[in-house]
Amino acid sequence: MPRSSRKRRRAEFRRRTLPGAPPGVLIPDPDAPRPAIQLMAFGPDAYEERPLDDVQTVRAALARWPVTWVNVDGVGDTTTVAEIGRMFGFHRLAMEDAVHVHQRAKVDQYPGYYFIVARMPPREMGGDTEQISIFLGDKYVVTFQERSGGDCLDPVRLRIRTGISPVRRAGPDYLAYAILDTIVDHFFPLIEESSDRLEALESDVFPTPRRDVMARIHSIKRTLLTIRRAVWPLRDAMNTLLREQSPLITNETRVYLRDCHDHTIQIIDLVETCRDMASGLHDVYLSTLGHRTNEIMRVLTVFSAMFIPLTFIVGLYGMNFDPATSPWNMPELRWYWGYPLAMLLMAAVAATLLVYFRRKGWLTSQAAPPEEK
Amino acid sequence: MPRSSRKRRRAEFRRRTLPGAPPGVLIPDPDAPRPAIQLMAFGPDAYEERPLDDVQTVRAALARWPVTWVNVDGVGDTTTVAEIGRMFGFHRLAMEDAVHVHQRAKVDQYPGYYFIVARMPPREMGGDTEQISIFLGDKYVVTFQERSGGDCLDPVRLRIRTGISPVRRAGPDYLAYAILDTIVDHFFPLIEESSDRLEALESDVFPTPRRDVMARIHSIKRTLLTIRRAVWPLRDAMNTLLREQSPLITNETRVYLRDCHDHTIQIIDLVETCRDMASGLHDVYLSTLGHRTNEIMRVLTVFSAMFIPLTFIVGLYGMNFDPATSPWNMPELRWYWGYPLAMLLMAAVAATLLVYFRRKGWLTSQAAPPEEK
Amino acid sequence: MPRSSRKRRRAEFRRRTLPGAPPGVLIPDPDAPRPAIQLMAFGPDAYEERPLDDVQTVRAALARWPVTWVNVDGVGDTTTVAEIGRMFGFHRLAMEDAVHVHQRAKVDQYPGYYFIVARMPPREMGGDTEQISIFLGDKYVVTFQERSGGDCLDPVRLRIRTGISPVRRAGPDYLAYAILDTIVDHFFPLIEESSDRLEALESDVFPTPRRDVMARIHSIKRTLLTIRRAVWPLRDAMNTLLREQSPLITNETRVYLRDCHDHTIQIIDLVETCRDMASGLHDVYLSTLGHRTNEIMRVLTVFSAMFIPLTFIVGLYGMNFDPATSPWNMPELRWYWGYPLAMLLMAAVAATLLVYFRRKGWLTSQAAPPEEK
Amino acid sequence: MPRSSRKRRRAEFRRRTLPGAPPGVLIPDPDAPRPAIQLMAFGPDAYEERPLDDVQTVRAALARWPVTWVNVDGVGDTTTVAEIGRMFGFHRLAMEDAVHVHQRAKVDQYPGYYFIVARMPPREMGGDTEQISIFLGDKYVVTFQERSGGDCLDPVRLRIRTGISPVRRAGPDYLAYAILDTIVDHFFPLIEESSDRLEALESDVFPTPRRDVMARIHSIKRTLLTIRRAVWPLRDAMNTLLREQSPLITNETRVYLRDCHDHTIQIIDLVETCRDMASGLHDVYLSTLGHRTNEIMRVLTVFSAMFIPLTFIVGLYGMNFDPATSPWNMPELRWYWGYPLAMLLMAAVAATLLVYFRRKGWLTSQAAPPEEK
Amino acid sequence: MPRSSRKRRRAEFRRRTLPGAPPGVLIPDPDAPRPAIQLMAFGPDAYEERPLDDVQTVRAALARWPVTWVNVDGVGDTTTVAEIGRMFGFHRLAMEDAVHVHQRAKVDQYPGYYFIVARMPPREMGGDTEQISIFLGDKYVVTFQERSGGDCLDPVRLRIRTGISPVRRAGPDYLAYAILDTIVDHFFPLIEESSDRLEALESDVFPTPRRDVMARIHSIKRTLLTIRRAVWPLRDAMNTLLREQSPLITNETRVYLRDCHDHTIQIIDLVETCRDMASGLHDVYLSTLGHRTNEIMRVLTVFSAMFIPLTFIVGLYGMNFDPATSPWNMPELRWYWGYPLAMLLMAAVAATLLVYFRRKGWLTSQAAPPEEK
Repeated sequence: MPRSSRKRRRAEFRRRTLPGAPPGVLIPDPDAPRPAIQLMAFGPDAYEERPLDDVQTVRAALARWPVTWVNVDGVGDTTTVAEIGRMFGFHRLAMEDAVHVHQRAKVDQYPGYYFIVARMPPREMGGDTEQISIFLGDKYVVTFQERSGGDCLDPVRLRIRTGISPVRRAGPDYLAYAILDTIVDHFFPLIEESSDRLEALESDVFPTPRRDVMARIHSIKRTLLTIRRAVWPLRDAMNTLLREQSPLITNETRVYLRDCHDHTIQIIDLVETCRDMASGLHDVYLSTLGHRTNEIMRVLTVFSAMFIPLTFIVGLYGMNFDPATSPWNMPELRWYWGYPLAMLLMAAVAATLLVYFRRKGWLTSQAAPPEEK
Repeated sequence: MPRSSRKRRRAEFRRRTLPGAPPGVLIPDPDAPRPAIQLMAFGPDAYEERPLDDVQTVRAALARWPVTWVNVDGVGDTTTVAEIGRMFGFHRLAMEDAVHVHQRAKVDQYPGYYFIVARMPPREMGGDTEQISIFLGDKYVVTFQERSGGDCLDPVRLRIRTGISPVRRAGPDYLAYAILDTIVDHFFPLIEESSDRLEALESDVFPTPRRDVMARIHSIKRTLLTIRRAVWPLRDAMNTLLREQSPLITNETRVYLRDCHDHTIQIIDLVETCRDMASGLHDVYLSTLGHRTNEIMRVLTVFSAMFIPLTFIVGLYGMNFDPATSPWNMPELRWYWGYPLAMLLMAAVAATLLVYFRRKGWLTSQAAPPEEK
Repeated sequence: MPRSSRKRRRAEFRRRTLPGAPPGVLIPDPDAPRPAIQLMAFGPDAYEERPLDDVQTVRAALARWPVTWVNVDGVGDTTTVAEIGRMFGFHRLAMEDAVHVHQRAKVDQYPGYYFIVARMPPREMGGDTEQISIFLGDKYVVTFQERSGGDCLDPVRLRIRTGISPVRRAGPDYLAYAILDTIVDHFFPLIEESSDRLEALESDVFPTPRRDVMARIHSIKRTLLTIRRAVWPLRDAMNTLLREQSPLITNETRVYLRDCHDHTIQIIDLVETCRDMASGLHDVYLSTLGHRTNEIMRVLTVFSAMFIPLTFIVGLYGMNFDPATSPWNMPELRWYWGYPLAMLLMAAVAATLLVYFRRKGWLTSQAAPPEEK
Repeated sequence: MPRSSRKRRRAEFRRRTLPGAPPGVLIPDPDAPRPAIQLMAFGPDAYEERPLDDVQTVRAALARWPVTWVNVDGVGDTTTVAEIGRMFGFHRLAMEDAVHVHQRAKVDQYPGYYFIVARMPPREMGGDTEQISIFLGDKYVVTFQERSGGDCLDPVRLRIRTGISPVRRAGPDYLAYAILDTIVDHFFPLIEESSDRLEALESDVFPTPRRDVMARIHSIKRTLLTIRRAVWPLRDAMNTLLREQSPLITNETRVYLRDCHDHTIQIIDLVETCRDMASGLHDVYLSTLGHRTNEIMRVLTVFSAMFIPLTFIVGLYGMNFDPATSPWNMPELRWYWGYPLAMLLMAAVAATLLVYFRRKGWLTSQAAPPEEK
Repeated sequence: MPRSSRKRRRAEFRRRTLPGAPPGVLIPDPDAPRPAIQLMAFGPDAYEERPLDDVQTVRAALARWPVTWVNVDGVGDTTTVAEIGRMFGFHRLAMEDAVHVHQRAKVDQYPGYYFIVARMPPREMGGDTEQISIFLGDKYVVTFQERSGGDCLDPVRLRIRTGISPVRRAGPDYLAYAILDTIVDHFFPLIEESSDRLEALESDVFPTPRRDVMARIHSIKRTLLTIRRAVWPLRDAMNTLLREQSPLITNETRVYLRDCHDHTIQIIDLVETCRDMASGLHDVYLSTLGHRTNEIMRVLTVFSAMFIPLTFIVGLYGMNFDPATSPWNMPELRWYWGYPLAMLLMAAVAATLLVYFRRKGWLTSQAAPPEEK
């Protein structure tokens, strides 16, 4: 795992505030860069897009445009973040969750707005998910992203700019849906890559199992778990949005949300399939390893057991008992046919053992038969 | 796995549209062949069947016949598909799901029609399931099949043509049931083949385990998982159809749907039984492998340990200490009974070891006793 | 597994009708023997019992007796079966399920009668369950059994004949209960035998594990699974009967059904206990096998490692360097104490190794200590 | 396992009546000892306690005292048991369950009384649970215990006698609670002992794993399963008592029952903890065994591989090629530095191998480092 | 595990009262130290804080301040504890649970107050959780802590003293929330440390697996289980507080409790992630061990099998058959090219074996390829 990724993963287990701090406290971090805030406001016919320096100009946009989208990139600078929260009147617990970027996906209903937390897919295999907090009001969508430096929402922006899709004609609920849908869609390439890697691993398992196979299966499984942990609660959150009667979400958007909800189920399904592939690979790997050990043992045993009695016999006739001192002292050493008889004896022993091993089935390796299908 | 199957499986993990594309967009693929569209319309007394070139002729059939079935084979040519969708007034999200052929089975209720997704069984072991999307209205059934080139619905067509079964006298709801029931029925032969293959594998496991047994168990398990993944959500979808009160489905058809629902449960049950057989086989296989290793080790150890001390003794008397220089230098080499005594010593050592190994129970292999039943 | 049992098991995975056949079609099999039909009708004071040749005589019994029980043994001859179904007016889907003998236990409510499917226990270990379909009306019970040639319902018949138990005074609902209860009771001896066999296996595992232990554990597990698969859905079916308000079942019978429902739960519980015993045995078996391998390795290693250096030494002094050509060429061969010194050297090496192995704890086998309890 | 325990366990899988016997039949066993029946009746101010010979005297107690507790020890003599059942008017199904002592814990509500089944903990580790059937009426508690010869209810009797606890002032519902609570409390020492034994086993696992460790873990697991199987349904039964509105149970007693219900949850929790400990031990055991095998192999390999080439070399110079017949026949045997050079050669080979093995890390055993914590 | 921790853990399985003791009895332990009782009372503008010697002074505080918090440190001295319980009128069952410090987290509603049990995190890895019992009334919070000597609630006290957080302006429900939230927050560092240790273990697994890895994984898993067992029921308890309508908890506090409830879910989630990491590590460890055994075997086999035939050959020519007595007795010993030919023969044998092993792939170790990512 790259060091940077490990560092980010560690962040997941670490809370920024000390345990016991009062709730809703946003502790400012003086080293954090000022977040990049971008405002995108639009109606059916036009749109406005600009970086936001002065928080107060949001009010003007809210008054002028049907839908205003304020996107905050990076929540390290809590001072600015808190300022935005105050302007919109968000509950401080919601703001705390937006800043403490280790939340599970969820939907909390507050008076006048929804607070939705989702996790965006990592940008590459093995990375971490990134938290996005979405505040959905009757005229605005405010999003806080965990890390600055690009996100997966550019397709949404493009659709707003071009005005082709219905996003320009619909309300903020549709915009929130579009954001969620884009996030959910970006999980698919990750699953696809996991599946590709698992298939590539299959060839590393079968003829001779490579040493790091398990570590790589394990790493893919971890990615799959990351996806699952991000999407599973998102599915529940979607369900909450679907079920609850709220004027903030129109019935038309609800149909779209149902579709997005289906996609989350589909992701979980594909993740399960991949995990089944991974554990099947695991089994095949262990079995191949076991067969290899077995094969090595078989060869060692046949070799050793064949030659050990023969070596004993040659050792026997290497003894230095003096035939001169006694007729019992290895008289065969002086027989006319002594040596050939010894050779014959050894050949007989070897043949007996060969027959024994053949009957045990140890002379042939259990080669895989030609694939029948 | 055959290459073609792998390719198709990869398709399952790949979405046709880019992440973030607006929902309901059907991106035309210029290389896709024009789908084969077939119209089948019937009433109690007569039926009409013909390939459909002009989409507009559907209206005539709808006006004339009680039930019209439009079947679209292959959804690659999204232009034609979209045209059909527009004519019937299907929601674009439903159309998107019909074209993006990686959906789980589900039932969505839209005003005036049901949108049912099911997955047809692969045509042979190891293949992929194929999506079929069924639109059920008050006078029509429209089906979109993922791949052209034959399907498993010919029995339904035959029943329409012959007019023996009640399908001609019933409404489109019964036709949709007949399609679903035929699909569900076609899963049974696959399970049967899986069960047969598992039984055939048993003989490859027991006397001497073959190397590729695990890979083949794994492959059967994958087929079973494919079936399970296709049927499990179908069961839930059936349940939705059964529970919801809708004028589109008569109570008589509901009884038939309950029967079909029972069949899905039965399939899941049989799949579980097969999976239990597979994992039992897995255990027996591992145990047989372990016993084989044990047996090899036993023989090796008995052989080595028997001969190693003997070889030491013969080596001892092969030493070249000069008996002439000292009375202590191996005087036994010149004894009258030297050689026979050495032989006796070795026989004693061997006998001691034999007794030791017999007491350990290492001299006899753990042969399977005669089957008691 | 005996061949006949395997054949029957295969039947479980095979459907008699081709996939896609219209529902409710009973395909006649000309080779099937005509089923044995038996009529048993009774009231509080008398009973009538006779084989049934003419289906029409059932009407007379229905008119005359409070409760009529028609039992059909073997459903291969679908013509006769269909005739009976038509006479009572059973729904053709129910009749199809009665003939396609691979159903899960279930309760379907039709107007005027219940359709209950249960599975009777196999007659011996390793056999298959047999389907029994029970139609419960207000004056009759009709049962269809999968296979002819004896069943487990003789105790019920005896109770009808003797008139001791309340079955004669009660309605058909009590008769249906008595049948179900008898079926459920017959599962207990199977579990008992499984438990006995598992205990008998324990002695085959511990001192030296026998090769076929896993295959036999696996076979017992399969029997347990067969029981579980038969009883689990039966429990749910019972529950349905208990919950639904229907005039066909009196409250008094409901109390008895609750008792029978408890028995199904108890069976599932005992099956789980047996499965826990089996998997415990599996673990002990694997561990014993591992220990045996370990023990064999230990002896091999001690033997080899003890004698290998000694054999090297004796080989050393077996070299033929000519002491005559150089004072450096093995002068020890001519020393006065050469041979004794060599023996001492070997004894020292052996002693050192013995100490090393003793410290490793490899000289004593890990014998099981005296049972403390 | 002691033979007596095995016999009792077998009883669990064996039903006293034959399958198919009519329900509610209590088959008398002429060899069974007459059960010891004890009557305990009390009011706030006084109590009466005596063995019960004549069943009829119960009526007098019922008339005189607010609460009467009839305790039947041993249900083998079904004649007496049935007599008591008839006197109180208990349903024959309930009586059957009281006599067939293999029931799961449950609560059945009959008109006028509750029928509660619970299982008392075994008196020592490895034993079986004992069934107690409690009939709770408005003025009485009747308990049937499976086996005579002492129970765990003496603390309850003591509290009745001393009159300190509220049991004397409360109704029969509190008495039933007190019995259940005492039973539940007696499971705790068993769990405690299981936990102690598991901890004691830890020292048998780590340095060198003992052979019978798995069998002992397995035996503890079985005890834990026995507890779990007894308490799990008891929890559900308690819940039923808590939820159902019945005049037989006062609200005050309900508070106590909730507490007892909490204890059952706690027991299940502790059992799970113990099982986690056991399976952790299992893993550590397997790993230790694997490491031991690995260690043995390592030593064997280093020894063998070190000496095998050296033994080859010394064997080489032990060959008897005659240097006299050819200058090519082992002239080194007559070199001046022949022997020292051979020794050097062997030392070089040994050193090379040592370096190779050191680089492989096979020279040092993987000793556990000093505990860091 | 340190001895002190083991002792404390044993306490978890041990109940202080004997089984069968009447409920609600607090048995005094004369050796227990008098608990340290601290009173903290506050209103929006001021606060009072002092150790409590006389229980009666609580009444004064209750009368004077809006919120009074009585904290009892250590519940060994049951006399004092019972006195406090009586003064507030707590139910004796609740008091019993407060003293028997082995409860699961739960919420019990009594008339006029809530009884909340939670478990505080251990102070270091491997320790035990500590029970805290919270009584929440309309004007007071009373907490009983299992052990004296410091707790994790100092941040709450600080917030009361400084008056910055809303705790001073809110009621006792908010104080109870603050306590629970602080407890929940203190579980995070433990999870973080578990995660750190697991990552540190990774380097002990891969190149060469250390012997105690499993024991350490096991120990971390136990800590994770401890956390899970403490937090899982707490989540349910929180849920109960959230759902129940009670005047004791304001809607504003309910929002905060929802946040705290989210944190418990998050903890369970992180624990699951850590457990997945642990079992992944376990798999990698087993696989590394298996590969190591395989590697050792490979080297042993190659070495042995290479030299065993060579040693046989050299032994052959070490035999002492007398060439003088027969032309068949090893004439090659006297050939001119005898020795070189023997050497060539051995080289040929070695080369053949080398080729054989190379084809088997046994000459190269399965080194991990350069990381591709």
